[in-house]
This record gives sequence, structure tokens and C-alpha cells, in this order.
Amino acid sequence: MATDFRNATTRKARHYIPGEQTSEPGWIKLNTNESPLPPSPKVMAVLAELAQNPELLRKYSHPMGEPLRSALAAHWHLPKDYFIVTNGSDEALSLICRATLGPEHSAAFPEITYSLYEVLVNNCGAMYHVAKMVSKPGQRFAVDLQSLEQIPARVIFLPNPNAITGEYIPRERLRHTIAASQKLWVVDEAYNDFAGADATMLPYVGEHPNLIVTRTFSKTHALAGLRVGYLVCSNTLLRDGLLAHKDSYNEDALAVRLAVAALEDAEWHQKILTTVAQGLHTLRRELSALGFTVYDSAANYFLAEPPAGKTAATVASELRAHKILVRHYPDSPFADCVRISVGSPEENARLISALQQILGIAA
Amino acid sequence: MATDFRNATTRKARHYIPGEQTSEPGWIKLNTNESPLPPSPKVMAVLAELAQNPELLRKYSHPMGEPLRSALAAHWHLPKDYFIVTNGSDEALSLICRATLGPEHSAAFPEITYSLYEVLVNNCGAMYHVAKMVSKPGQRFAVDLQSLEQIPARVIFLPNPNAITGEYIPRERLRHTIAASQKLWVVDEAYNDFAGADATMLPYVGEHPNLIVTRTFSKTHALAGLRVGYLVCSNTLLRDGLLAHKDSYNEDALAVRLAVAALEDAEWHQKILTTVAQGLHTLRRELSALGFTVYDSAANYFLAEPPAGKTAATVASELRAHKILVRHYPDSPFADCVRISVGSPEENARLISALQQILGIAA
Repeated sequence: MATDFRNATTRKARHYIPGEQTSEPGWIKLNTNESPLPPSPKVMAVLAELAQNPELLRKYSHPMGEPLRSALAAHWHLPKDYFIVTNGSDEALSLICRATLGPEHSAAFPEITYSLYEVLVNNCGAMYHVAKMVSKPGQRFAVDLQSLEQIPARVIFLPNPNAITGEYIPRERLRHTIAASQKLWVVDEAYNDFAGADATMLPYVGEHPNLIVTRTFSKTHALAGLRVGYLVCSNTLLRDGLLAHKDSYNEDALAVRLAVAALEDAEWHQKILTTVAQGLHTLRRELSALGFTVYDSAANYFLAEPPAGKTAATVASELRAHKILVRHYPDSPFADCVRISVGSPEENARLISALQQILGIAA
Repeated sequence: MATDFRNATTRKARHYIPGEQTSEPGWIKLNTNESPLPPSPKVMAVLAELAQNPELLRKYSHPMGEPLRSALAAHWHLPKDYFIVTNGSDEALSLICRATLGPEHSAAFPEITYSLYEVLVNNCGAMYHVAKMVSKPGQRFAVDLQSLEQIPARVIFLPNPNAITGEYIPRERLRHTIAASQKLWVVDEAYNDFAGADATMLPYVGEHPNLIVTRTFSKTHALAGLRVGYLVCSNTLLRDGLLAHKDSYNEDALAVRLAVAALEDAEWHQKILTTVAQGLHTLRRELSALGFTVYDSAANYFLAEPPAGKTAATVASELRAHKILVRHYPDSPFADCVRISVGSPEENARLISALQQILGIAA
């Protein structure tokens, strides 16, 4: 019997379960909130250029993710020092946990949210508490910001829009809450651009040393396969602590350059946002017509409760027979719902048509 | 005054200082052990092809680094389960520390070695002890394997060849030491291919549940800018613990495919190894002729002690005036040496010529 070399925390560690990936052709993936459009053609043009530059691969990449870091600072009109480029925003979240939490600390987040927080907090040996969801018009599982703030915790994680539900919390409410809080707030803006140009907390990072904003190129820039994220924080000590845990060369030389190209193509970024907004509108209308209860969302996904006679599990598994992947979370408070990512107009139409067949409704 | 949100470990955290990077043209970088040759032209050809495939960027990459993981398993004739693909081998080392060490544990490594181990062990709250170097013919700072094994520690880190010195420890010696040890041995094979085809511990991974081998594409495959490494381990519990700490999608979709192309081009890989072996031979001869004491190395770098009259610090700074970067470590036991990476034949010739000028020796 081999020695068990795992430390005590790791013996109790949990695993994050990523949404199913398939590379087989013919499948429609509406299960992991990827962009319905491909990345900007300008990104692909830069990639073709980089294929002429072997030196970029031969030499180490920039330890601080240049040229992306400077491009982000210019884009957001914030000091460059505020930015740490990360290998997806998941790495940013992991760095935050490792730099701030330990067995003597707790974190808090909404009961329904990105399930990675629970895994990361647990795996650095800390405790966590959740704020119960509240119900309000259009949103069965809404964040209760006040009870979240009242949890005795060192760090609070809050995606805006929230994961799973897509609920957007007005940033002015968040700003006032954070201004009055002694806790560290991690506002995860993975889907924030979908909620509008005035939804981000970035303009307030300078005034709040207890705020970290995390962002990603995975969703609104269609670069999930590239692993580029970043965090923004004005607290110098905290940033120094985060950097101590960061791998020396955490981001590769191609990814940072492709992300710059994506950032600079504002028109394509807008096209992705518009495609998602229109797709969301269409899907809400069509699913409602099919008898689904569709909850409000400001992101590129939404929760929908099937009409009587079909469970969410059945809908998900029958969609799979149509080669359409959506997400169903058994053993969750929303096990009676499916979570659907907004696809391209063609994918959305195929989803509707498959649902009509599943429900036995003529088109 | 902002609250200090860093946890206790992070308040005492250290930072790894990467070797200087410059993107200015005209510089010769012999300071960070990159390959003297560019990556395989087949890697660049695959990159040009991937520039036609935006779907790869739009969708999440494979959580376990496929297709690279399967290619590695086939290449090394080992079960696929043994492999964890990582974002450079630095991520592998970080995962190992996070999964196995804590405030109640210690790690051990040679006094002179890759300085990241010290940082990683410290930053997960653990202690470390070092085994003093011993002197032997051709190697002023040799690893004392026996005293390393005798340190009371949970985990032992050992690069083979060793960092800084390039010393190769015969794998049969290592195999017997590990077979008799209760500790977890992490054999860091970043430079192992330079030491010959029979230098790797990989064939012994299956028989030793207390062995992890880490490897990288940065050096012998000339892909430092791409951030691709992996670890190999037959211990199921330990692997499960490592995976719990791994980011869900830690490696990007381009990098894993380019690494497969590099792995498959055995001829180019051999060309890199041969170029380094010849360069090392030439540099040893030429530097010795200039009065340097050059120590043995099986890697693509070596330690050299300048002749009387010039300190290592002066040599490094005067080489900088010639736009040549080498590494000098003040406040180290080898502060009287420079560490030089083997460059291309042209770079090596420019180094020799610059050293002749610095030492006032006619060519």
C-alpha cells in the first residue's frame, strides 16, 4: 500500500466538474456559455501572422502578460499596476483564495452561483457560508445582497451577472455595499459585458481597496479555448500577495497577443453582444410559447423550467438525443430547471425545433 | 489605511525572480536556458493551420490537455492516466506543493538548485531544508544524494540534471535511492533530454508510487513561450489530489496541439540536442582557453568562474555592454561564477569574441 502523500486539506479536497466538452462534429453545445460567434477575424489574422514568428515561442513569455497588460490599462483608463493577467479568470480566483484564505478564515457567496468558489475555498482549507436566495418578480433565485454582506467572512465572491441565473445586480447598489463593507469583495465579471457598457465595477476599483474585479476573454470575446483572464485591484499589498502565488510565466506569448487583437476589435465584440441579446430575446419568447417558465437573465444563458409533464432531467436527456447539450444540475435547488446557453441563430432555431418535437407540439 | 487581506502565509511569501527578458532586437539572451534553435518548422506549420480554425478558440479547451495527454502516453509507452498536462512544469511543481505540503511538513532539495522550490514550499506555509553541496572532480557543487535522502522531509525536489550546475545524477543511483525511500521524490526533468536518451526516470514511474517526474516543452522542444509541461505519476491517490488543485482548463487549445507537433518531430528535437551538445563542447573549450574554470554540465547551461582579475559580476555587466545577457547570482555560494546558456553557433561565437575583448585577449 503506497503512502498517502496528500496533505490534510487535499484529502478533503473537492473537484470542480466542468461542463461536458465534445469535439465530435454535429453537436450543438449550449451547456458551457461559450460565445455563439467565433472570435474576431482580426484575432485569426494575428494568429496567422504569429505563425511566422518562431522566436515568440522559443523565448519565455512576459512574466506580467505584456503586451496585454498595457492594452488593458489603456482600454479601461486605469493604472497598469492594477492589472494581473491570468490563465483564464479561474486562475485569478485561485490566486485570490490562496493569497487571502486559510483554515482560520471563511468566505461567502450566494447559495446559487459559480460552483468553483466552493471548490477553491474548500481546497485552500477555509470554510464557506452561503447566502440564501430570495424570490422576486422574474427571478426565482435572486441574490440577497444584504444577507450576503452580513455573513461573517473575510472574502465575498459575487459574479455579476450571477452564474446559473444571469441575474444582474445594479452596480450602484454593489458600490454602496462595498463602500460600507470591511470585507474583501471579489466581483466576477465573466459575463458583465452582456449586461451593458455601464455594468462594470472597474471605474470604482481605485476607490475601493476591498474590491477585486475578475474578467475573462472566454465569453464576450469568444476565446474560451485560449485561457486569458485578468484581475484588477488597487490594493498594493494584496496585489503583491497575489503575485507571490502566481506562476512566473503564467500566460503564453500567443494568448496575450490574440487577446490584444480581440480587445481592439470593438466592433466584433459588439457584434457578439448583439447576437447574444437578440438570441436571448428570441429564446425567451419561443420557450415561453412552448410553456417554459423562463427567468430573467442579463448574461448569455438562462434558467428555464419545463412545462408540466416533462422534468428538466428528461428535457436535457431528450435534447441530447437531438445532439444538443444543455446543462441540468441534479441535487440542486434548481434541479427542476435546465440552464441553456444562447447559441447562434441557427443553433437557437434547432433547439426550438427539438423542443417542439420533445413536447409533441407542432411547429 | 486599507485592511491587509493577505493570509499569514502570504504575508511571509517570497517572489520568484525570473531571468531578465528583453524583446529589443540585437540582444543575445544566454540567461534563461532557452533552446538555441527555434521550434520545429512543423510546429509553425501546425500553427498556421490552426489559424484557420476559430472553433478551437471559441470553445473551451480539453480539461485534461488532450490531444497532448494521449500523445505523451503513446510516446513514453505509459498509461494515459499517469499524465497530467500543466501550464509549464512550474504549474506541476506548484500543484505538488499545494497537494502535499502544509505548515506541519517540510520539503528538501539541494542547496544549489532551481530557486522556485524554495518559493513554492515557503508560499504553501511549509518548511524546507537543504542538503549541502559536495565537491568532486569537474563539479564544484555536486548533489549529495545520500544526505538529501536523510533529511527529515515529506517531499524531496531534485532536478536531473540539476539547475544552475547542470550536474547529471545517474538514474540507476536515483532509482535505488527512491526504491529505499519513504519520501515523495519529485524529479524535475526540465533539461533531462540533454543528458541523453537513457537519462529519464519515466520507465520507473510505474514501480515507484513515491515518484513524480515533471517535464517541459520549454527547453528541448524550444517552446518556452508556449507554457506546456506535464507530470507523470503512478500513485492514484496523489494524482487525484493534484487534480483537485488544478484549474479546470489549465492548458489552452493551441498549446496542446503545438506540443503534439513538437513531440512528433523527433528529428528536430534531435537537432536541438545536437546543437546544444556541440555548442557546450565549443564553449567549454574556448572559455577554458580564455582562463575560465568551466564545470561539468549535462544540460544547456554551465557555471564558469572567470580568470583572476575579473569578478563574475564584472564579466556579466561587461557582457551586458556587448548586449549579451548571462546570469550572475550575487549573494549565492556561486557568486564568483557566471551561468551561461548555450546559444546558437553564431551567438556562442559572439560571446567568445566579447569575452576576448573584456579580458583584453587578442582573438
